[in-house]
Amino acid sequence: MSGKITELFNIKYPIIQGGMIWNSGWRLAAAVSNSGCLGLIGAGSMHPAIFKEHIQKCKKATNKPFGVNLPMIYPQIDELIQIIIDEDVKIVFTSAGNPKIYTSFFHQNGIRVAHVVPGVKFAMKAQEAGVDAIVAEGFEAGGHNGKDETTTFCLIPMVKKEITIPLIAAGGIATGKGMLGAMILGADGIQMGSRFAASLEASSHENFKNEIVKAKDGATMLTLKEVTPVRLIKNKFFNQIQEAIINGASIEEQQKILGKGRAKKGMFEGELEDGELEIGQVAGLIDSIESVKKIIEDILIEYKEALSDMNSEKYCIL
Amino acid sequence: MSGKITELFNIKYPIIQGGMIWNSGWRLAAAVSNSGCLGLIGAGSMHPAIFKEHIQKCKKATNKPFGVNLPMIYPQIDELIQIIIDEDVKIVFTSAGNPKIYTSFFHQNGIRVAHVVPGVKFAMKAQEAGVDAIVAEGFEAGGHNGKDETTTFCLIPMVKKEITIPLIAAGGIATGKGMLGAMILGADGIQMGSRFAASLEASSHENFKNEIVKAKDGATMLTLKEVTPVRLIKNKFFNQIQEAIINGASIEEQQKILGKGRAKKGMFEGELEDGELEIGQVAGLIDSIESVKKIIEDILIEYKEALSDMNSEKYCIL
Repeated sequence: MSGKITELFNIKYPIIQGGMIWNSGWRLAAAVSNSGCLGLIGAGSMHPAIFKEHIQKCKKATNKPFGVNLPMIYPQIDELIQIIIDEDVKIVFTSAGNPKIYTSFFHQNGIRVAHVVPGVKFAMKAQEAGVDAIVAEGFEAGGHNGKDETTTFCLIPMVKKEITIPLIAAGGIATGKGMLGAMILGADGIQMGSRFAASLEASSHENFKNEIVKAKDGATMLTLKEVTPVRLIKNKFFNQIQEAIINGASIEEQQKILGKGRAKKGMFEGELEDGELEIGQVAGLIDSIESVKKIIEDILIEYKEALSDMNSEKYCIL
Repeated sequence: MSGKITELFNIKYPIIQGGMIWNSGWRLAAAVSNSGCLGLIGAGSMHPAIFKEHIQKCKKATNKPFGVNLPMIYPQIDELIQIIIDEDVKIVFTSAGNPKIYTSFFHQNGIRVAHVVPGVKFAMKAQEAGVDAIVAEGFEAGGHNGKDETTTFCLIPMVKKEITIPLIAAGGIATGKGMLGAMILGADGIQMGSRFAASLEASSHENFKNEIVKAKDGATMLTLKEVTPVRLIKNKFFNQIQEAIINGASIEEQQKILGKGRAKKGMFEGELEDGELEIGQVAGLIDSIESVKKIIEDILIEYKEALSDMNSEKYCIL
C-alpha cells in the first residue's frame, strides 16, 4: 500500500467529504463519490433504520466507493456496525472514541478504517490501533473538537512527524489553495466539511446553508468546552450559553441550557436563533451554495493553478 | 512599489522576526538582520532609556535594515516615538491600537509602517489608515491575540481577499514548509516569533527557552480572554487563572490574580511556575535552541526543498 489516499480508498482525487450530522445524507455522499472524491454518510444523526435506508439509497445513486462516519459514542453503535456489515460498506471513518475497540473487527470484514483525531497523542494511539489513515482536525473545524485547541497549521506537521500511515488534514480547508497548503504541511489528502455543508446536495436546511454563506471572519466560536467542545455560529443560543459560562455556570447547568435536539433544530430544521449551527471558521471564505460537482471542479482548478504558480517569481528565494 | 516584502524593507528573504517582549533585544534583532531577514526590537517591555540603548547597540551590530515593534497601548508611547525619530529607525511594526493615529506621522518621517492584526476588519482598517503592510496573526500565535480566535489557515486567505497591500503571515510558522504553506494561502512573507524566542540570541531566560523546546502538542492555551487574550504555556500560574475563570471570577478578580510583572518574571527571569510564559502552539515543532544563523539557514533549505518537491508525484492530480 502506497501512502496515497487515492489508492487507499480507490478514488480519483484525495478529497474526502466530512460525515457531518444533519448534513451528510445519501445525496451528498453519492454526489461527492460520483465526482471522484470520497463521500461519507454521517451516521451520528441517524436512527439505525434511517442509516440503513441512506446506505441503500447511496448504493443506488453511485457505483463509486463511499463510506460512513461513525461517532463511537453513538448509543446503538452495535446496530450501526451490523448494518455496515450487512450492507457491505467498505470504508468507515470513526471519531469520538477509542479506535482499538473496533478496528481489527472492521479489518476482518474487509473494511478500511480512518480515525479522526484533534491531537498528536490521539493520532499515535490510532496508528497503534492499526487504522489505515488518520484524519487530523484542527481547532478551526466546525462541530465537535478537541480540548487542546491545536490549529490545522500546527497540527498537521506535528502529527506528520509522529506517524507513518496516510494523513488527511481537516479544519479550515475549503479551496484549492487550502488543499495545496495542507499537503505542503504534511497531509496526503484533505477532508472538507463546511464547504460541502453549503452545497445543494447537503441534507441540512436552506436557512442554515444561507447562514454559512453570510458568515464572515469571527462568526463562529468554540464553546461548551467543559461539556463537549463544539464550534458554532454565534447566534442567540450561543450567546445564552456563553453568558452562562462567563458567569460560572456548572457543567450540569450548561447541559441543562443545551438540552436535547439543538443540532437538529439548527441545522436540519433551520431554526437560526435557538438551534446549534455547527460550522467551521472557513465559512468566512464560502460565498455561495453550489452543486457538489461545481465545488469539486473549482477546487481542482484552483489547486492546479496554485501548483503551476509555484514556478512564479513570488516563490523564488535566491 | 511591488508587493514584495523584500523590496518594501530592503531585505534579502521575506522573513520577519516578531518583536516579542522580553525576548527581542538588540542581539536578536541584529542577528536576524545580519542573516538577510528583518529583525525587530520589541519595545513593549523596555523603558524609554533602555529602548534607546537597544537601538544604538543594534545600529552598531548591523548595517542592515532593522525595525522596532511598538504596542500602541504603551504608556509612554510619545517618548518612544521621539527616540525612533531621533535614532533614525526606518521601520516600525505597530500593534494593539489604532493605526490611524501615527501612520501619516511616521510616513512624513520616512518610516515604513506595518500593522499587526488578528482579523479581517482590523486589516481593512489598517490598509485604510495607509500602512505599508499588514501582519495577520493567527490564534495559534504566542502572547497577546485577538478575541475572534481566527487561525492562520483561515485568516491569511480571508485577509488576502480584502486587501491589496503586502501581507505577512504570523502564528504557527517555524519551518520552511510552514513558510511555503503560508505563502500559498496568500502571504507575501512571514513573521516568526516562537522559533526566534528559542534562539541563542534571544534576550529571554534560558529556563524559558528550555520550556519552549520541551513543549509538545497541547502545551499552550489562550487564556484571560475577558481581560486581554494571551497564549501561555500551561504552568502553575496558568492553572490558577484558568480555575478562577471556570469558577466565574470577575474581570477585576482575574486582573488581581494576574498582578503585574508576570511576563518579565516568566520569560526574562525564568520563573517557570509563577511567571507568564508566552509562546505559540508551534513550540511543539521546536526541538532545539539554535543560533539565528542556523535557524534561518534551516528554514531556507527546507523551503527550497519543499518548493522543488512540488514537482513530485505526491502533488500530481490528473
